[in-house]
Amino acid sequence: MWTQTLGEFIGTLILILLGDGVVAGVSLNQSKAKDAGWVAITLGWGLAVTMGVYTAAFLGPAHLNPAVTIAFAAIGQFSWSWVLPFVAAQMLGAFLGAAIVWLHYYPHWAKTNDQATTLGVFATGPAIRNYTANFLSEFIGTAVLIFGLLAFAQGKWTAGLAPTGVGILITAIGLSLGGTTGYAINPARDLGPRLAHAILPIAHKGGSDWGYSWVPVLGPLAGGVVGALIFVTLP
Amino acid sequence: MWTQTLGEFIGTLILILLGDGVVAGVSLNQSKAKDAGWVAITLGWGLAVTMGVYTAAFLGPAHLNPAVTIAFAAIGQFSWSWVLPFVAAQMLGAFLGAAIVWLHYYPHWAKTNDQATTLGVFATGPAIRNYTANFLSEFIGTAVLIFGLLAFAQGKWTAGLAPTGVGILITAIGLSLGGTTGYAINPARDLGPRLAHAILPIAHKGGSDWGYSWVPVLGPLAGGVVGALIFVTLP
Amino acid sequence: MWTQTLGEFIGTLILILLGDGVVAGVSLNQSKAKDAGWVAITLGWGLAVTMGVYTAAFLGPAHLNPAVTIAFAAIGQFSWSWVLPFVAAQMLGAFLGAAIVWLHYYPHWAKTNDQATTLGVFATGPAIRNYTANFLSEFIGTAVLIFGLLAFAQGKWTAGLAPTGVGILITAIGLSLGGTTGYAINPARDLGPRLAHAILPIAHKGGSDWGYSWVPVLGPLAGGVVGALIFVTLP
Amino acid sequence: MWTQTLGEFIGTLILILLGDGVVAGVSLNQSKAKDAGWVAITLGWGLAVTMGVYTAAFLGPAHLNPAVTIAFAAIGQFSWSWVLPFVAAQMLGAFLGAAIVWLHYYPHWAKTNDQATTLGVFATGPAIRNYTANFLSEFIGTAVLIFGLLAFAQGKWTAGLAPTGVGILITAIGLSLGGTTGYAINPARDLGPRLAHAILPIAHKGGSDWGYSWVPVLGPLAGGVVGALIFVTLP
Repeated sequence: MWTQTLGEFIGTLILILLGDGVVAGVSLNQSKAKDAGWVAITLGWGLAVTMGVYTAAFLGPAHLNPAVTIAFAAIGQFSWSWVLPFVAAQMLGAFLGAAIVWLHYYPHWAKTNDQATTLGVFATGPAIRNYTANFLSEFIGTAVLIFGLLAFAQGKWTAGLAPTGVGILITAIGLSLGGTTGYAINPARDLGPRLAHAILPIAHKGGSDWGYSWVPVLGPLAGGVVGALIFVTLP
Repeated sequence: MWTQTLGEFIGTLILILLGDGVVAGVSLNQSKAKDAGWVAITLGWGLAVTMGVYTAAFLGPAHLNPAVTIAFAAIGQFSWSWVLPFVAAQMLGAFLGAAIVWLHYYPHWAKTNDQATTLGVFATGPAIRNYTANFLSEFIGTAVLIFGLLAFAQGKWTAGLAPTGVGILITAIGLSLGGTTGYAINPARDLGPRLAHAILPIAHKGGSDWGYSWVPVLGPLAGGVVGALIFVTLP
Repeated sequence: MWTQTLGEFIGTLILILLGDGVVAGVSLNQSKAKDAGWVAITLGWGLAVTMGVYTAAFLGPAHLNPAVTIAFAAIGQFSWSWVLPFVAAQMLGAFLGAAIVWLHYYPHWAKTNDQATTLGVFATGPAIRNYTANFLSEFIGTAVLIFGLLAFAQGKWTAGLAPTGVGILITAIGLSLGGTTGYAINPARDLGPRLAHAILPIAHKGGSDWGYSWVPVLGPLAGGVVGALIFVTLP
Repeated sequence: MWTQTLGEFIGTLILILLGDGVVAGVSLNQSKAKDAGWVAITLGWGLAVTMGVYTAAFLGPAHLNPAVTIAFAAIGQFSWSWVLPFVAAQMLGAFLGAAIVWLHYYPHWAKTNDQATTLGVFATGPAIRNYTANFLSEFIGTAVLIFGLLAFAQGKWTAGLAPTGVGILITAIGLSLGGTTGYAINPARDLGPRLAHAILPIAHKGGSDWGYSWVPVLGPLAGGVVGALIFVTLP
């Protein structure tokens, strides 16, 4: 089980390194990928998840997401006693992945003066601030994610391609449901990098918007559990 | 068979939630995906179909489209006695999926003042209004869809990947034949969300363009049957 | 063999319907896909080939391209006696596919006044007119195509996915080598639709640029044979 | 082993022909792909690697990258005695591939007056010149590449699809980590075409920026070895 927990750490690190990385590339000043657009963002995050799963899959189940771990525990497909180590490993991996993004794009932070842009590389934020609606968006997006993952597991996927399928699901959710809150759909994806933003000495950074930070944690947790419960009621 | 019918309901719900969702993301004001363009739209709809099929495939055949159900019945590959329940489940799923899109993007409707944009999230409309030409476009697009699906079924697809292939076909039709009418190629995809648009209290909405609504119903039904009949005449 | 020849006709029809269709969608006035860009074009053509191969693959080898048929004959992988029927079926399918594109986008031709745009839906043309360089571009592109197809056939492709792989190869060639001449890399793809452009009563059309028409025929034929010959000299 | 070395030559040639080709298409004046953007670039390079691997995989292991060859040697998965022939074949293939790009886009060089654009087709360069940060970027990108390749090899990939997976990895790295230095992540990819740029009589060319040339050689070599060493310490 500790090997599996190590897998969560490594996979979530890769997920956030590549995921926050695509946001950095598309939004930081003087990046060659500047203004590459929403297709680049959603494709980049989908591939980030695919690569995170590949790099974790030979060590464990590759949840890479507390909403997945807790939803699977809620329906008896994962042991509650391992939820805490898994979530801790995911958070740690997300924090470290975000720190490497900071190093990777090091000279670009000083060229980027918009504090919302810099925060946006690390943490999600609402297009229109409305906590009820924002919570609902994260709830719906994560319910689709968990329902989709459980439906995938019923399929006859060739083992080698399942991580690609998970990435396609992430890209689909991003394209279709991401316009409202930036689709955290994963508490570790948002909270780990937000902590990194708060702690690291990033040039020109502003506040870390802690007022919003509970939405991309509780919305995904609630939506994930409900998505899983709907699935298990099916015949 | 009722399990299969449930599959049509769930799969079409996911299809429309993600499909109408990508149009909402790309066209509603203040969405992060605003103006992401036609590649985002066609990729998003292709992935929506892929995910709809995955979430329905463990319950049934995953038609998710009355034009598919009726075309398959017309060539003896589906029982006529189950056409009505299947189509009803598809319509209900499409309606509910559209309603969830309304909730998901809730604060964005009030920010969007163009009534055609709001209707366009739910229902298709012609680039150039010419009912004969529009009917022909939907006819051709759906004939290619059904012919393609039947040809796929002859292939040696690894079972786990067939839904991905169906999504690729939808993206291909969207890129190549969607410019004229927005490629409903599915009566439930158009009529269910159009009903939702008419009934739901959407901010700033206008009329639901019922004058056009028969085109994306009858065009796909006719084209689907003809595409299937051409296929079965082949050696 | 006549069944295989029918497959060439149907597959090339679908290839050109979807391939010329994506150019029509991206370039004709008032199309919803207007200005969707080069990624849409290259992805659309790749998917067009994938779908053409799927719809032909249960009837025959799905060459869909005289440069493929002749190159395979040149290295003894196809019988010379069937080259003429195959090429005739490919040409006929390409012509008919282009005619359906004309019908599908019927109201849009009258809204498009630029004659080069209208011709560009049907036939390729050079970015910079220089017959030697243009010939060389088509030669190189098709040599890569044929070499790639023969290398694919050595791989352990799951049968069901080979057409997807061929489409990926077409998209790769389009993205990387298409900027010069629009990558015909297939005599039927260019000559069949050019004939359709010359014959059909398309609104506002101009000349069919027959002076250039030999380049996308002879360039692909020569490049294809050379690509195949290089391949067979390998150990 | 000489057949494998030939595979490195051919595969790297195709890799650079298609990879430098997409940069040429997107950046040279009067190209039909002009300004197709970062998604086109990263997708094009991903497909270039996929096609390079397919065309080399029936002859050998298809490293196509000295950083791969040396990293695999460092962890005992490749014989040191074949490193030099492999790297020489990779360099030669990269040089020749770049030369064919020059021929393919021949009339476009004279229309392109910006010397940095012309050099950018062949060699990478930093968005912000800072050798320490640039080295770190190439180090991180290549560490992810090698770690990812080794993780892939643990998976149950269907053999026929592994090259597609490698291309997906390259696209992921490009989207997420390419904005800083243009992601050489391969010494042959940068040095071979830079040599071609220096030697070939390209119209309007300027200097070859040899001052930067060590970064995309040493960064990838160091990052690749470290990525491989991290991988082998895992349980």
